[in-house]
Amino acid sequence: MKSPASNLQYVFSPKSVCIVGASHEPSKIGHAILRNFLQAGFKGQIYPVNPHSSEILGMRCYASVQDVPSPFECAIIAIPAEAAVQALLECAKKGAKAAVVISGGFSEVGNKKLEEKLVQTAKKYSIALIGPNCMGSLCISSQTDSVFLPTYKLGRPKKGEIAFISQSGAIGGCILDLASRYGIGISKFVSFGNASVIDESDLLQYLAGDEETKTIVLYLEGVKDGKKFLQIASEITPQKPIIALKAGVSASGTVAVASHTGSLAGSAAAYKAAFAQAGIIEAHTLDDLFDLPKIFMLPRTNGKRIAVLTNGGGNGVLAADAIEYHNLQLASLSSQTTSALKSFLPTYANAKNPLDIIGDADAARYEKSLQLLLADKNVDAVLVILLFQTPALDSSVTGIIAKAAQGCAKPIVCVSTGGEYTEAQRRQLDSMGVPTYSSPSSAIRALSKLIEYCERNCP
Amino acid sequence: MKSPASNLQYVFSPKSVCIVGASHEPSKIGHAILRNFLQAGFKGQIYPVNPHSSEILGMRCYASVQDVPSPFECAIIAIPAEAAVQALLECAKKGAKAAVVISGGFSEVGNKKLEEKLVQTAKKYSIALIGPNCMGSLCISSQTDSVFLPTYKLGRPKKGEIAFISQSGAIGGCILDLASRYGIGISKFVSFGNASVIDESDLLQYLAGDEETKTIVLYLEGVKDGKKFLQIASEITPQKPIIALKAGVSASGTVAVASHTGSLAGSAAAYKAAFAQAGIIEAHTLDDLFDLPKIFMLPRTNGKRIAVLTNGGGNGVLAADAIEYHNLQLASLSSQTTSALKSFLPTYANAKNPLDIIGDADAARYEKSLQLLLADKNVDAVLVILLFQTPALDSSVTGIIAKAAQGCAKPIVCVSTGGEYTEAQRRQLDSMGVPTYSSPSSAIRALSKLIEYCERNCP
Repeated sequence: MKSPASNLQYVFSPKSVCIVGASHEPSKIGHAILRNFLQAGFKGQIYPVNPHSSEILGMRCYASVQDVPSPFECAIIAIPAEAAVQALLECAKKGAKAAVVISGGFSEVGNKKLEEKLVQTAKKYSIALIGPNCMGSLCISSQTDSVFLPTYKLGRPKKGEIAFISQSGAIGGCILDLASRYGIGISKFVSFGNASVIDESDLLQYLAGDEETKTIVLYLEGVKDGKKFLQIASEITPQKPIIALKAGVSASGTVAVASHTGSLAGSAAAYKAAFAQAGIIEAHTLDDLFDLPKIFMLPRTNGKRIAVLTNGGGNGVLAADAIEYHNLQLASLSSQTTSALKSFLPTYANAKNPLDIIGDADAARYEKSLQLLLADKNVDAVLVILLFQTPALDSSVTGIIAKAAQGCAKPIVCVSTGGEYTEAQRRQLDSMGVPTYSSPSSAIRALSKLIEYCERNCP
Repeated sequence: MKSPASNLQYVFSPKSVCIVGASHEPSKIGHAILRNFLQAGFKGQIYPVNPHSSEILGMRCYASVQDVPSPFECAIIAIPAEAAVQALLECAKKGAKAAVVISGGFSEVGNKKLEEKLVQTAKKYSIALIGPNCMGSLCISSQTDSVFLPTYKLGRPKKGEIAFISQSGAIGGCILDLASRYGIGISKFVSFGNASVIDESDLLQYLAGDEETKTIVLYLEGVKDGKKFLQIASEITPQKPIIALKAGVSASGTVAVASHTGSLAGSAAAYKAAFAQAGIIEAHTLDDLFDLPKIFMLPRTNGKRIAVLTNGGGNGVLAADAIEYHNLQLASLSSQTTSALKSFLPTYANAKNPLDIIGDADAARYEKSLQLLLADKNVDAVLVILLFQTPALDSSVTGIIAKAAQGCAKPIVCVSTGGEYTEAQRRQLDSMGVPTYSSPSSAIRALSKLIEYCERNCP
C-alpha cells in the first residue's frame, strides 16, 4: 500500500478538484475557495459540491460527492467536522488521492476520536490529507489556491523559490500577505493545522524533491516525530536552507499551543539544540519569518568582509556596530578602490568603509561607488543604505542597484527607513530580487545568517 | 554673561529668523529651508539673505546680513564653512540669540580651528548655536522648520508629546518620516551635529522644562560631558522617560563616528551601565527609535499581567512566548470574565488567555471581548492582535479600539502584520494614539519597557 505522503503532488498539482462545501454566499469559506480557484486560473476540472445549489459562480454545482460525474484527484473539504469524515470517505471512493480538510472541530477541541476516523480513511485509501483545522494550500505554478481568505484581504505572492509550511493559518496569512506586498515570490504554501496524516516531515521531504523550491520556511507549534523530522531536515539543509520558527517554547506558550493545534510543544533549549544539529536556521519572531528567507535569494558567500555604502553617516555608524555585533567584518577597501573613489567623490566625503557618499549623492554617484565596491577583492558583500529623504536621490537608483545585482556573485542587501516614498522604493527593490530591510541591524542580521549557512554548507 | 543654553527658546520659538544662504534654486538647501518655513506657516518675520537675489519665493531678499532692516532672534546659516563664521558674527551684531548652523566643513573634516572661531562668537554673544554640520530643527507648535529636506521627501509629523534629539540628521530624518507616515505626533526635533556649543545635555535640560514634551528620544554618537549628561538625565527620567540609542559602540563604529560628527565614542558596556544608572531606556536599533517612544503615549502601569486578544491562534502562541521571554505574565482571567466571554463566544472558542476569538471574529466580537478584558481586575494591560486578512474583520475595529483606549487607565497595544490593507489600519490606529507593532514580540518588548519604567518611577 502506498503511503499518504507519496500522493502529496496531488495536493499541489491536481488535475481536478472537488470543493465540498462550495457556497454562493460570499461570506462563506466555501465561496472564497471556489472563487480563489477561479481567480488563480486553475486549468483543471473543478467540481463544487453543495446540496442547496445547482450553480455557483457560473459553475455547475453537485448535490453530493456521489453525484460528481467523474473521478477527481484532490478534495477540498470545508464543512462541519462530523460531515467532513463522511465526505472524505465519499471522495476516496471517487478516487481522490489528496484532501485538504479546512474544517475545524477535531483534536484541537478534544475530538480525538473524530480525527482518528479521518486518519483511518486517509490511510486506507493512501490519501495525502492536509489538516484538519487548516487554512488551505497554494501552488503558484499549478494555479492551485485552496486558501480560504479572499484575495482582496490577503494578497497572493508571485512565483518564486521560497516554500512556506505553516502549522498556523494565521501566521501563514501574515507572511503571504507581506510577500505579496513586497513582490517576494513563493513556490508553494501549505498550512497543515493538526497534521493528522501529513506532517511537517512529510512536507519537508516533498519539498526536498521539488525543483521549484530553493528555500524552505517553517512555522511549527509542535513536531510529530522528532527523530524523523531531524533526520529529514539534516538531509535537506546542505542543499536547501530551512528557516524555522518554533512557537510555544514558553510554559504559557505550550499551554496555548495545546488549545490551538493540539500539538505537544517542547522547551526552547531542546529545539535550539536540535535545530542547530540539523543545520536549521532558527527564526525567533514573526518578523524573522519574512526577513530571513529573502536573504537566500542572493548569491552564496562565506566571506565576512562587508562594505557599507550610504548617503547618511549615522546609518553607516549603526551598520558598523551591527557588523561587529554579528561577528562579521567591515571590509578594508583596497588602495585601488580608495583612489578610484577619491577621483570622483566630493572632497568632503571620506573614501573609507563605511563609505558615506554624503547627503547630496545622486543615483550616478551610488552607481559608480557600488561598482567599485563590488569589484574590490577585499569585499565579500555590500550593504547599500538609501536615505530617500534627500532631494538628490531619486527612484532611478533602485534600477541601478537591481542591475548591479544581476549576475553579480556578491550579495547586495539594502536598507531604507522612512515613510510612503521610501516604502514604495523598498517594494520596488524587493520585487527586483534585492532584499531590503528597515534598519542596518536587521539587514546585517539576515546577511549573517546567509554567511553562516554558507560557512557550513558551501565550503 | 548669559550662557548660550539659556537662549535655547530662540531656536524653537523665534519671533524672527534670518536665513543666510536662502536660494531661488529648488535643489539648494537654502531654498528648501525658506520654503519649509513658509509651508509650516511660520508667523514671525523671515529675512532671506543672498547677495545674488532680491526676491525669493515672493519674499524680499537682502544682499547681506548687515542689510537686514531689523534685529532678529534666530539665524539659520546654510553657506560654506568659512563664510559661515563671518555670517554668525554679523547675525550676532543684529541681535541674534540663537543660530542653527547647517554648514558642514568643521571639526568633522579636521577643521577644528574654524569651529573654534564659531564657538568663540557664540559664547561671546550668548548665542544658542545648534550645529555646525546639522540638519536643522523643528517645533510643531511654533511652526518653525529649519530642516533642509523638502516636505515631499520627508513628511513632517503632527503635534505630539515626543521630542527627538538626534546627533545625526539622517537618523533624525528616518524617524521623522516614519512618525509622519504613522501619524505619531512630536513636539520638537533637533539635529545637533557637531554639538560645538549646544550639546545633548543642554537640549535635555531645555526639554525637561518644556511643557509640550512628555517623552525624549536621543540618538547619540558621543557625549560631550559624561558627568553633566548623566546628572541631568537622572533628574529628568523620573518625570519624563528618555529613550537613547548610542551609536559607535563597536571598534569599527567608533572609527566611523570620528569621521561623521567628530565625537569620541565609548564602549557598549560603559554606556549600558551609565544609561541604567540614570534610568535611561536603552534603544539598540533604528527600529527601536520608532517602536519604543510611542509606547509612552499610553497610561502608566507597573502591573505585569497581560491579556492577549486575537483572531489567530498562532499569533496568540507567539505573544505568550514573548510575554514570558520579557518577564511579564499572562494574566489569569477572573471567573466572571470567563463566564461573560462564554456567554457570547462561539462554542469552538476557548475562553482562556491568550483569548483566541477565532478567525470569524468581527469588530463587535472584538469590542465585547476587549471590554471584558479591560474590566478584569486581574488584567493590567491588553495586547490586541488583529489579522485583517480574514473577511469578517473590517476597518471599524480600529475606531472601536481607539474608543476603548480613550480614558482607559490600562494600556492597549496592537499588533497587525500584513500588506497594504493592514498597513492602512495600523496607521489609523497609531494616529489615534494606539501604538501598533509588526509582531507580538516587538509589541511585548515595547510594553515591557513601559512597565519597567513604571516599576522604577511610578510606585
